[in-house]
Amino acid sequence: MLRVGICQLNLTVGDLDGNVERMVAALAEVSERGGDVAVFPELAVSGYPPEDLLAKPRFALDCQAALEKIAAATGRCAAVVGLPVAGDGGALFNAAAVCANGATAGVERKAQLPNYGVFDEQRHFSAGTPEALFEIAGVAVGISICEDIWIDGGAVEQLVGGGAELIVNVNASPYNLGKLDERLGILRRRIERTGCPVVYVNLVGGQDELVFDGRSLVLDAGGSVTAQAKAFAEEILVVDVETGCTRGSAGLGGPRMRRIPVSTASAVAPEPLPAAQPVASLAPLDEVYAALVLATRDYVTKNGFSDVCVGLSGGVDSSLVATIAAEALGPERVHGVLMPSRYSSDHSVADAEALCHNLGIEGRLIGIEPAHDAFEQMLAPEFAGLAPGLAEENVQSRIRAVVLMALANKFGWLVLTTGNKSEVAVGYSTLYGDSAGAFAPISDIWKMQVYELAQRRNEVAGRPLVPAGVLAKAPSAELRPDQRDSDSLPPYEFLDPVARAFVEGDKTVGELIAAGADPELVRTVGRLVDVAEYKRRQGPPGVRVTPKAFGKDRRIPITNRYRGEARD
Amino acid sequence: MLRVGICQLNLTVGDLDGNVERMVAALAEVSERGGDVAVFPELAVSGYPPEDLLAKPRFALDCQAALEKIAAATGRCAAVVGLPVAGDGGALFNAAAVCANGATAGVERKAQLPNYGVFDEQRHFSAGTPEALFEIAGVAVGISICEDIWIDGGAVEQLVGGGAELIVNVNASPYNLGKLDERLGILRRRIERTGCPVVYVNLVGGQDELVFDGRSLVLDAGGSVTAQAKAFAEEILVVDVETGCTRGSAGLGGPRMRRIPVSTASAVAPEPLPAAQPVASLAPLDEVYAALVLATRDYVTKNGFSDVCVGLSGGVDSSLVATIAAEALGPERVHGVLMPSRYSSDHSVADAEALCHNLGIEGRLIGIEPAHDAFEQMLAPEFAGLAPGLAEENVQSRIRAVVLMALANKFGWLVLTTGNKSEVAVGYSTLYGDSAGAFAPISDIWKMQVYELAQRRNEVAGRPLVPAGVLAKAPSAELRPDQRDSDSLPPYEFLDPVARAFVEGDKTVGELIAAGADPELVRTVGRLVDVAEYKRRQGPPGVRVTPKAFGKDRRIPITNRYRGEARD
Repeated sequence: MLRVGICQLNLTVGDLDGNVERMVAALAEVSERGGDVAVFPELAVSGYPPEDLLAKPRFALDCQAALEKIAAATGRCAAVVGLPVAGDGGALFNAAAVCANGATAGVERKAQLPNYGVFDEQRHFSAGTPEALFEIAGVAVGISICEDIWIDGGAVEQLVGGGAELIVNVNASPYNLGKLDERLGILRRRIERTGCPVVYVNLVGGQDELVFDGRSLVLDAGGSVTAQAKAFAEEILVVDVETGCTRGSAGLGGPRMRRIPVSTASAVAPEPLPAAQPVASLAPLDEVYAALVLATRDYVTKNGFSDVCVGLSGGVDSSLVATIAAEALGPERVHGVLMPSRYSSDHSVADAEALCHNLGIEGRLIGIEPAHDAFEQMLAPEFAGLAPGLAEENVQSRIRAVVLMALANKFGWLVLTTGNKSEVAVGYSTLYGDSAGAFAPISDIWKMQVYELAQRRNEVAGRPLVPAGVLAKAPSAELRPDQRDSDSLPPYEFLDPVARAFVEGDKTVGELIAAGADPELVRTVGRLVDVAEYKRRQGPPGVRVTPKAFGKDRRIPITNRYRGEARD
Repeated sequence: MLRVGICQLNLTVGDLDGNVERMVAALAEVSERGGDVAVFPELAVSGYPPEDLLAKPRFALDCQAALEKIAAATGRCAAVVGLPVAGDGGALFNAAAVCANGATAGVERKAQLPNYGVFDEQRHFSAGTPEALFEIAGVAVGISICEDIWIDGGAVEQLVGGGAELIVNVNASPYNLGKLDERLGILRRRIERTGCPVVYVNLVGGQDELVFDGRSLVLDAGGSVTAQAKAFAEEILVVDVETGCTRGSAGLGGPRMRRIPVSTASAVAPEPLPAAQPVASLAPLDEVYAALVLATRDYVTKNGFSDVCVGLSGGVDSSLVATIAAEALGPERVHGVLMPSRYSSDHSVADAEALCHNLGIEGRLIGIEPAHDAFEQMLAPEFAGLAPGLAEENVQSRIRAVVLMALANKFGWLVLTTGNKSEVAVGYSTLYGDSAGAFAPISDIWKMQVYELAQRRNEVAGRPLVPAGVLAKAPSAELRPDQRDSDSLPPYEFLDPVARAFVEGDKTVGELIAAGADPELVRTVGRLVDVAEYKRRQGPPGVRVTPKAFGKDRRIPITNRYRGEARD
């Protein structure tokens, strides 16, 4: 038995001093509660992912200096601390140090370095190999980092083969819908092959486009979850973990591993802790919503801001973004801005005002016609004799961005942008207009899901937050008389699945047509997705909640003539 | 002796049909000139870098289908063709196929996959190992890809150890200042260790932020350059290459390699070609300028545009950008836009008009005061009682962006943005204002170098292109009365080297202060560089001409509290 303190903390990239302070406090709490070891997430000292901060040779050295402060704070209760560690010849490792009694006893280095999707770990790190087992309070603990537990025959199996009685796996595993089940599948497969219990510690919090959901886990030697930490919230969860492999380690046939003595067992056996309470699972819509709220809060606050503004059009996207912001920051920190033009319908302003009322947020009304008139006058000599079109429509959207940015600059707010994944995918937005903003809470939410999320929030609140009129009306940018999204785009119920197949499924036009999709629909959407790359490149970060969001997940050249429709 | 056709082509990412067409035509030309083999650059079929187009399983298959068209066009003259090739279990390889007599004889796969700087090859590719030597016209040729020739004991040395008489090395090596010397050093080191001549074939052309300079090379067994293709231009260079290693291959001690018969020697020995003419090297400023011109031309034209517009402030940055654009596209395709405000000095308009005259480009004058007044009126109730400041300044810059984008939208132009590397580094620009645009020709040029480049262009032209007044006056954004850059920033002669140390040298504040730099200057610049990350993330691509540009080269988190000044 080992008493483990799972320190599921919300740490900040680059905040070495702040992260150390949090970890030292958590260590003290675990120690006070009789813990044998406090376990922190992957790269806890630096925050995750540090990206090219790792290119500065000084950065890893500063992290190592920060580790010494944590090590100095340890006593009998050990600490497992993720951090980057410099090796010979400029090599860097994604490592976990084991500290106790005021010193660092040893370090394990991550072997399996993800370099796909949002991950660039081979850009920075060299691969390590399992070094030793750590004798913590009499238990031989194998320390592993994230994907080291994914691989048949990998580091974790070497550790168990070498005699480990418990696997501690430290993670910074970003959320996407369905991720918990994926993790459980991976951990259970490993336990099936090793018979060794696992303590899986995850990071929590938002970091640019990533959000970490926490939900740290303890699985026993039979693969059952015996404890789970909170979703999307910090928790220091202290649990008594049964150690020892059910099938022994001989089956894996590895050599016995070197053992590093770390700490002794408590002289007095502590009162056993009650079993952890089971955690209710979240419905998919609630889980996604919680991710958006946490990511938005953390982006704003970790960047030193308190307030945000949102342009409210009376549409469902801006209504949902304001709802998320109000929940993330408190309604008093959210400033709705209504910017009607000559083409705005009456219900636009009325619906936006109702939303402000429902959420308890401020709503400022700033009509854009003075600037709209001025630009018309300025551009009239240039545009003489030409029919009005997209250029004139975009001017209106850009005027609104100028107003929002002016308010943000003046009052120190951040602008939240309201584009959803469907719009971002097909480029149905104005660059430097409605696409402008510091952060995009719903850029990974397809339009049809925007409606579902808004409806679900009303349901949870037990009253309309997003007004019924917003949910009922046809989507429109209102940049010309009687405009509807459906004038320019296929209906979202057709657009969403096709765009999703391109973006998340990496399908080509040719493949979708061959699979029986409507050729015209597929060609239209495919072309729009390809051509919008230049807009996306200039978009703000948004919250990633699917296995493939825009941003670091999907790196498509702007200059690109591939249309995916081979003619032979 | 082998007659080699170096096909230094300007290919386009994703344009499989177009690239194949170019390659088939080049192959015919080499064949007609008696060539034994036509060599194309790395990933020639797909263009380089294809980035996440490679995530679409169909993409590599389409490239392989395209290869068949090239193979079908070969006769006795062989072709070495770079392309992505799918392997078992979803593996992908960065490969070079050797084709002759209408078929593909074999494939080599790149072993050394760069995953640093702008490169993400381990994201997409698995590493190969040298397979065989190709007997082309009686010569045992070892085929290698890019960094395979960088490594002591790597693929190239295995090929020579295995009996190669000539190394063909295909590349997509992006330009930066000093790159040619770096390449020569690498090639000479390899020849020193192998005694084997090298044909080094490089790509040419712009691709988003990258520009490939060509300058393909032939080095003999003594390490001397016997031929060099043009810089920043296409060329099909047919040369007679002496084959055979001076020191034999026994010294490298490798096993003999399998040989794949490809083609036979010409029945009639061809008339020897005259030795290649030596190529004059370019002065650094001219080399960089040529890179900017080619990259700008290719970004515009490969994306299907013909014309650009540039906001002309009468300052040196916009003057240089217009000069580059006029050279890249022809003056009739460049539209200068002068947008004075109440704060613009008289010389701003006069200098911009003189520039238009000197370059022979159109200059349109659109005063921004109507919109400026309108926004003041719209924002007055919001800003009542507050002192004017940054918010009001930014409004003016954003009005100019609205005007430029309206013209671009209306007439189908691209907007070139004019920020230099100093401005981009410290964030001295308005987001959605002067930072707006499709492409940033000088975003990798430090301010002091902007002056040098402008002066050098005048010198080369033998007359002032950039007016003398532009070069003489103090830099100013002209967003408030008598504003100067030096009100907000350290003088550029101090700012540039410090910002460069942060950005290109990956130094920290602590390191620079320890090295004796002025602490206040270092802290100011360091803080500005860190805080501007959110602006850079929304910036357009710009031309990379240094070993570390902004963009794919430098991936710094926005949410980041690291200040690089450890307190112990």
